[in-house]
Amino acid sequence: MFFHVQNLINDIVADEPDPAAANALQEGLGGQFGEMRTMMQYLFQAMNFRGPDGKPYRDLIQGIGTEEISHVELIGTTISRLLDGSPQYQGKPTDPLDKPGSGGATPLNIALDHSNIHHYLVGAQGALPVDAVGNPWSGSYVYNSGNLVLDLIYNLMLESTGRLQKCRIYEMTDNKTARSTISYLIVRDQAHENAYAKALETLGINWKSALPIPKTNAEKFPEVKKLLDLGLQSKQYTFDLGNQSQAGKIFQGLSPSNDGTELDASEQAPAGVPSVIAPERFEEFSPGLDPELLALIQATAEIESAEVTLSFGPLEKGPAIKPVG
Amino acid sequence: MFFHVQNLINDIVADEPDPAAANALQEGLGGQFGEMRTMMQYLFQAMNFRGPDGKPYRDLIQGIGTEEISHVELIGTTISRLLDGSPQYQGKPTDPLDKPGSGGATPLNIALDHSNIHHYLVGAQGALPVDAVGNPWSGSYVYNSGNLVLDLIYNLMLESTGRLQKCRIYEMTDNKTARSTISYLIVRDQAHENAYAKALETLGINWKSALPIPKTNAEKFPEVKKLLDLGLQSKQYTFDLGNQSQAGKIFQGLSPSNDGTELDASEQAPAGVPSVIAPERFEEFSPGLDPELLALIQATAEIESAEVTLSFGPLEKGPAIKPVG
Amino acid sequence: MFFHVQNLINDIVADEPDPAAANALQEGLGGQFGEMRTMMQYLFQAMNFRGPDGKPYRDLIQGIGTEEISHVELIGTTISRLLDGSPQYQGKPTDPLDKPGSGGATPLNIALDHSNIHHYLVGAQGALPVDAVGNPWSGSYVYNSGNLVLDLIYNLMLESTGRLQKCRIYEMTDNKTARSTISYLIVRDQAHENAYAKALETLGINWKSALPIPKTNAEKFPEVKKLLDLGLQSKQYTFDLGNQSQAGKIFQGLSPSNDGTELDASEQAPAGVPSVIAPERFEEFSPGLDPELLALIQATAEIESAEVTLSFGPLEKGPAIKPVG
Amino acid sequence: MFFHVQNLINDIVADEPDPAAANALQEGLGGQFGEMRTMMQYLFQAMNFRGPDGKPYRDLIQGIGTEEISHVELIGTTISRLLDGSPQYQGKPTDPLDKPGSGGATPLNIALDHSNIHHYLVGAQGALPVDAVGNPWSGSYVYNSGNLVLDLIYNLMLESTGRLQKCRIYEMTDNKTARSTISYLIVRDQAHENAYAKALETLGINWKSALPIPKTNAEKFPEVKKLLDLGLQSKQYTFDLGNQSQAGKIFQGLSPSNDGTELDASEQAPAGVPSVIAPERFEEFSPGLDPELLALIQATAEIESAEVTLSFGPLEKGPAIKPVG
Amino acid sequence: MFFHVQNLINDIVADEPDPAAANALQEGLGGQFGEMRTMMQYLFQAMNFRGPDGKPYRDLIQGIGTEEISHVELIGTTISRLLDGSPQYQGKPTDPLDKPGSGGATPLNIALDHSNIHHYLVGAQGALPVDAVGNPWSGSYVYNSGNLVLDLIYNLMLESTGRLQKCRIYEMTDNKTARSTISYLIVRDQAHENAYAKALETLGINWKSALPIPKTNAEKFPEVKKLLDLGLQSKQYTFDLGNQSQAGKIFQGLSPSNDGTELDASEQAPAGVPSVIAPERFEEFSPGLDPELLALIQATAEIESAEVTLSFGPLEKGPAIKPVG
Amino acid sequence: MFFHVQNLINDIVADEPDPAAANALQEGLGGQFGEMRTMMQYLFQAMNFRGPDGKPYRDLIQGIGTEEISHVELIGTTISRLLDGSPQYQGKPTDPLDKPGSGGATPLNIALDHSNIHHYLVGAQGALPVDAVGNPWSGSYVYNSGNLVLDLIYNLMLESTGRLQKCRIYEMTDNKTARSTISYLIVRDQAHENAYAKALETLGINWKSALPIPKTNAEKFPEVKKLLDLGLQSKQYTFDLGNQSQAGKIFQGLSPSNDGTELDASEQAPAGVPSVIAPERFEEFSPGLDPELLALIQATAEIESAEVTLSFGPLEKGPAIKPVG
Repeated sequence: MFFHVQNLINDIVADEPDPAAANALQEGLGGQFGEMRTMMQYLFQAMNFRGPDGKPYRDLIQGIGTEEISHVELIGTTISRLLDGSPQYQGKPTDPLDKPGSGGATPLNIALDHSNIHHYLVGAQGALPVDAVGNPWSGSYVYNSGNLVLDLIYNLMLESTGRLQKCRIYEMTDNKTARSTISYLIVRDQAHENAYAKALETLGINWKSALPIPKTNAEKFPEVKKLLDLGLQSKQYTFDLGNQSQAGKIFQGLSPSNDGTELDASEQAPAGVPSVIAPERFEEFSPGLDPELLALIQATAEIESAEVTLSFGPLEKGPAIKPVG
Repeated sequence: MFFHVQNLINDIVADEPDPAAANALQEGLGGQFGEMRTMMQYLFQAMNFRGPDGKPYRDLIQGIGTEEISHVELIGTTISRLLDGSPQYQGKPTDPLDKPGSGGATPLNIALDHSNIHHYLVGAQGALPVDAVGNPWSGSYVYNSGNLVLDLIYNLMLESTGRLQKCRIYEMTDNKTARSTISYLIVRDQAHENAYAKALETLGINWKSALPIPKTNAEKFPEVKKLLDLGLQSKQYTFDLGNQSQAGKIFQGLSPSNDGTELDASEQAPAGVPSVIAPERFEEFSPGLDPELLALIQATAEIESAEVTLSFGPLEKGPAIKPVG
Repeated sequence: MFFHVQNLINDIVADEPDPAAANALQEGLGGQFGEMRTMMQYLFQAMNFRGPDGKPYRDLIQGIGTEEISHVELIGTTISRLLDGSPQYQGKPTDPLDKPGSGGATPLNIALDHSNIHHYLVGAQGALPVDAVGNPWSGSYVYNSGNLVLDLIYNLMLESTGRLQKCRIYEMTDNKTARSTISYLIVRDQAHENAYAKALETLGINWKSALPIPKTNAEKFPEVKKLLDLGLQSKQYTFDLGNQSQAGKIFQGLSPSNDGTELDASEQAPAGVPSVIAPERFEEFSPGLDPELLALIQATAEIESAEVTLSFGPLEKGPAIKPVG
Repeated sequence: MFFHVQNLINDIVADEPDPAAANALQEGLGGQFGEMRTMMQYLFQAMNFRGPDGKPYRDLIQGIGTEEISHVELIGTTISRLLDGSPQYQGKPTDPLDKPGSGGATPLNIALDHSNIHHYLVGAQGALPVDAVGNPWSGSYVYNSGNLVLDLIYNLMLESTGRLQKCRIYEMTDNKTARSTISYLIVRDQAHENAYAKALETLGINWKSALPIPKTNAEKFPEVKKLLDLGLQSKQYTFDLGNQSQAGKIFQGLSPSNDGTELDASEQAPAGVPSVIAPERFEEFSPGLDPELLALIQATAEIESAEVTLSFGPLEKGPAIKPVG
Repeated sequence: MFFHVQNLINDIVADEPDPAAANALQEGLGGQFGEMRTMMQYLFQAMNFRGPDGKPYRDLIQGIGTEEISHVELIGTTISRLLDGSPQYQGKPTDPLDKPGSGGATPLNIALDHSNIHHYLVGAQGALPVDAVGNPWSGSYVYNSGNLVLDLIYNLMLESTGRLQKCRIYEMTDNKTARSTISYLIVRDQAHENAYAKALETLGINWKSALPIPKTNAEKFPEVKKLLDLGLQSKQYTFDLGNQSQAGKIFQGLSPSNDGTELDASEQAPAGVPSVIAPERFEEFSPGLDPELLALIQATAEIESAEVTLSFGPLEKGPAIKPVG
Repeated sequence: MFFHVQNLINDIVADEPDPAAANALQEGLGGQFGEMRTMMQYLFQAMNFRGPDGKPYRDLIQGIGTEEISHVELIGTTISRLLDGSPQYQGKPTDPLDKPGSGGATPLNIALDHSNIHHYLVGAQGALPVDAVGNPWSGSYVYNSGNLVLDLIYNLMLESTGRLQKCRIYEMTDNKTARSTISYLIVRDQAHENAYAKALETLGINWKSALPIPKTNAEKFPEVKKLLDLGLQSKQYTFDLGNQSQAGKIFQGLSPSNDGTELDASEQAPAGVPSVIAPERFEEFSPGLDPELLALIQATAEIESAEVTLSFGPLEKGPAIKPVG
């Protein structure tokens, strides 16, 4: 069973809209080696896992899989922010199409020659479950042979390829919004690569100096270096509310990447930052409420919610979460 | 950000393996109107949501989306149980292929003429991200126009179609394992239909006696009736750890399905039941550990885990979770 | 602009339901060489046609394309009839699921091991836009190079392949419902092959004795022979309401198939037979009307329709069309 | 059975070629919510319809489905016109590639950086059965659950989404060729939305002020306003040659969109305008006739056509249709 | 540049037709981890290879890729043999459909309920480029990141998964035709796994006892054991006519699978066995020659071929190749 | 069984990188009518061929199919060369990302707005198995009906369409690298068209002046004219090492294209030119070797290869092949 908290797993730095960067990031969301794929692959591997003796391995996969759902949320939100307002008239109080005489304007003409036209035509300046050339995500990407060693090797390769592609995306754009998320995911992919490499180490493979694969030297990317200095590549959270995960039996000891750090699985989750709801975009008819519908919605917003009975308690420690809107 | 607890959202009743039923359930997992689709659609709608005034609507969608991840886990596990051991020699301590002279046996020949051969050939008697005719799940299924009313109508239609298909699956098999999950999902789909119908009611649509759509009279299915009698079709959990969801502002008052119940959003989550790890299947080479690898794994299992620092505390109230394996 | 008349282009002989035959016929509907493909290919070729001098060629393609829409209707309806009632309790006045104590029955269990489970699970015992292994029809099938000679050669090959596949389907089943439509389409495919071959003949290719391709000797199939004796393989209708088609300038003279017949384009359309609406199927919840909804529908049925102003007049000559239902 | 008349259902205004606009319109032709989809969905729903009592509903769906074929023809032809001659040397009597010394020119180099290269490479400056990012149309789009209420709700949502997307396309381009068709389809989509909403109204749903969904205020688009003033959003033609349609029993009374108009189903079809055959494009080798082949084609054009026996008579009233070419 | 010799790379043992086994083998041909995929993946990796220093690695990949084309030929031919004559009337001199009075027979009715109906309907009892559930092979399977270490790890995983799936197919059928090819490919997959493992060993990874992955103990399969005893798992051919391959610099020394053998790259190619042309199948209209066409073909067969100028000489040593037919 | 020689089948002329041209050429590699398709189609037709009497036809198809593998290699390598270094800093000894202070650069930003972003993001400036709009190659393209005449007609149409598309690509770019390969393939496609046309001529079809189809007058393209003057459109190689091909029984006599040449099948293969390994690209991390890995690779390169036992002898006559790197 899964739970949610209204926090993003990492902060997204503000910058100008950038639809081309948004499109490149789609590979990291809906591409063959993106976050939707890692998430689904690990959830299937955890569900179908065989062999009670292997619980630490199952828990490791389950924990990373749970983190990947938060990565889908993070990179999807980042894409939305890069697209939001990209037709260049940000947040004006009135939409030109609503003014008398404004008829016939083309506020969305940017869509004709920028990256993925579906970002404006099918979605409303928001993320889509597709890759950077517009191919929809496919269930055929998920790999789950059922053989533990093979599945772990595949997962290692998957994280390594995801990191390689994100390093390439880093080299395509210096938009700060894009880079804050890409850099974070580069470091987390390396943490996951370390996790799978360590699991294979417990099964007898000696990586010597082969890791990380690939050797992208991402520490030369300034935004990445900051996160490496914090040691984020050597931490793995459990995201396990019942505190039953045995992943820490694997994720411990020296990092297989030979960077001198110790692997650390002693935290349940990072703090995160509160999520925010995006503004209206009239030219997309999104959410598309006329005054009458708006009044109805506001009436709903004034209703008092019932008190909720908690299974897992209110927030004890962790981030301060502020109400949105 | 998402969390996990090692509980299934609902119990799965034990019965004989049944690969044909497993295949029918694949539609409910990886089909166009299955749980992978509802999950992804709602997560994208929540990420891309526009209009801070609409927070109760966003929270409603986010909460149902979070529940759908647990439904993916539930129906995936159900499919795995229906497949597990279906080649008919369940849990024997030694695999015939491992015995001298056993060479040349065909323990997997059931795969040739039962439903989806990939259940044995690509997966290891486990769930796959495909529908009941083997088509992989596609990102093109996800609908998120950005227009609030349209998205809500689509979601209503989606839950209604999901329920219709599950009622048809109910009529295809009386395997108890299959039915326990199908019946639960029929009732939860109706709860979600009620949620979207109520949201549209707040936006001015009067359903009169049109709901539920379709009128499948599922109360005539005994397993379903038990759950309806518990009122599960009129509850919606928040699954929100920060206790910030405003979904209860919508999900309250009389059910739009006119069954006389009151909608209730006062619980964070159902109790669930502990999940279990599946046994080995030698004929699938899953997990495929020889004695040497097994010894390495057991060595790992004996390592002591580090103590985990908790953000969201250990389990306070809710189900007792027992260790697995 | 297109018009419709509530007639099927050919009669469908009654026989027992047969879901396996229905599935084989799906190839003729939604397969790569089926009727949806010919219809779409010719409509695109007609829309995109270049060269006013080539009007007779455009009209030939347009006319065959229009006929193909009626073939989609014919084979789709045939599949529906083969599926209708195939779970074996045809037309009983009351559905077992509606009777007290009938709960828990499995009236759709045939779906688990017969051909395409989607016929019962996604559709309601009706035709689907897929081929005989369940692959959805794809726009990538459509060929329209814009080069006239190439398009004509492709069309010839397409009709020939369609006929080859239908001859193979004929050899798979002797269900009379299936065969009445398959035999009709074998003969019409040959007429279309003759049309494209004749068009290529006007462009200088001499087929000598090469036609028909393939030489399936379908005259040895009794149901086909009857239609050949009527000369249906040498007729092409215009389906053109404005009577502007110049296709007859091509479709005339000796048949290129060397069967001694003369090609004849002097009829606007065949007579056809009235179409019928299928009965309810309770186990599919189709149409799924409860007594209250049924009363509303009947109230609608009693409303008097407005008189329609006609552009193309009421039926002058042609089939007698009787009201349905 | 279907018929054709050599008229487009609406006129296409002349303007400059515009390949980017052409590509945007592809979404309206081959996209998930485009005209190929509505056409196929309604034809399948009509073929598979269950319940003779529901004939007015079947006839409504059949009539709209027939209109959609004409919409495919209209938008496909519009795309072809937007592409035709877009490599910028329109209608010159001789092609540079045919002149001595012209060898090595690159008359198609526009294809390298404009929208969909397939418009020049696979097609010959003509429409393709794909969406605006080049994905081929898929049979998996078609929805036909067999449950009447669900199918009607889906159809309502489908028309609404189609209209939403077309309003967005309107905001992308002011090319008059593109806008004349897009505006017409916006209004006709609203008519179809009204039709399905009214059908649901007869089944008990009260839309109050919720319609139209979405509230795009398209009357602020000047080209759209002209058509709304003509009341085209409140008319539904039967396109039924046998004059048997009972759709008028549903499509009558006050419009559910609350614009004060009365729904009107009293016309068989709009007048339309004669279709025209596109000119040659030498650089595409389309139709690609050399002098010898051209002479053969002209010989065919001089043959006298046989007189056609009419089932549905020649054009009685309706548009004057002039010969083409 | 590639060359062909009319020899299969390994002999195919004769046995009864078996369409279910044929279908299982389709996974090994057109599945995600089948021979079409390995072939294409390695050809792309060889074409796109970067770094002249890495020539031995490029040559290793090129050599294995070339072998995979022969594996496509081998497994495709095996599938054809398993299908050939499976409708049960093998090689009769005359087809019942050709005899007077035989009309209306259903010689292909086996197609309705056996595995993949396309084997009889789209193909003519021959192999198809699809997997075991009928999904067409996709270019999206090919992995070529350009990073040498990643590509080698992927290739190792790919060979291991291919071998795992073939071991499962072995357990599904004891048809000798199927097993002779499956067993050969199990052993060759292991040779390729050894090759990639050894290449990674030269890059610093120490596999210790982890290989082979998975540990399927395929030596317990009698047909496999015979080939292991011949040491086929430790040989790699160059298939290089110019004798320029440097693959032997990698493929040498002790096998990384720890079976005590030495890797050996000293042979250009195995001997192979002559290929044979399949008989006619009248019921498939394949090749579908009537007496007139047959006479023309025989006239062609009597023409004397021109003498061919040889670049690579006639067969020097190697298998005796006998003429076919 | 297949063999390889480290030669390209034709030389590739050097010119500037050009990613847009590279993308257009992808249609010729991975498009529906590209070289991957012809290669696979002919290999399947050869494997599944029926009728020993037809050996000359089988051999013709097999020989052309073998040539197509070399065409895949040629056009893939051409695409790689067009992409290689296209981010504009060609072959600099040090990568800016490796220099202190260079952090944060965007050497791949060209990828954001040029043709297919996957060329930089998924591949490493190399060819991909996709078409010019990014759709992956699909096994559903392969046509193999089993009927000889139909297969030959399809193949003729396929070669003709391939040539038509390549003539259009020629008109899109004058990059010399692109044109050298496109021109060669235009002429070879015509040779293959001649081969299939001649085969159909032996079966009774008289093409008179219809060929070539289409009449693209490619002799007006200077690069093409040079190859036509060499008569390459009228030669067909056997690529058959055993010298058993009977294709020359068909490919002889006057060309069906009526250009006055004689068809000639007397050569085993063209000479070809040595292939070269591409340079490193640091910004793609390809091959991505750090100094430590590089040292290991060089150690491998110094190992002496074993002597290879030859089945088909070393190169006798034919091109001089020089070592690479």
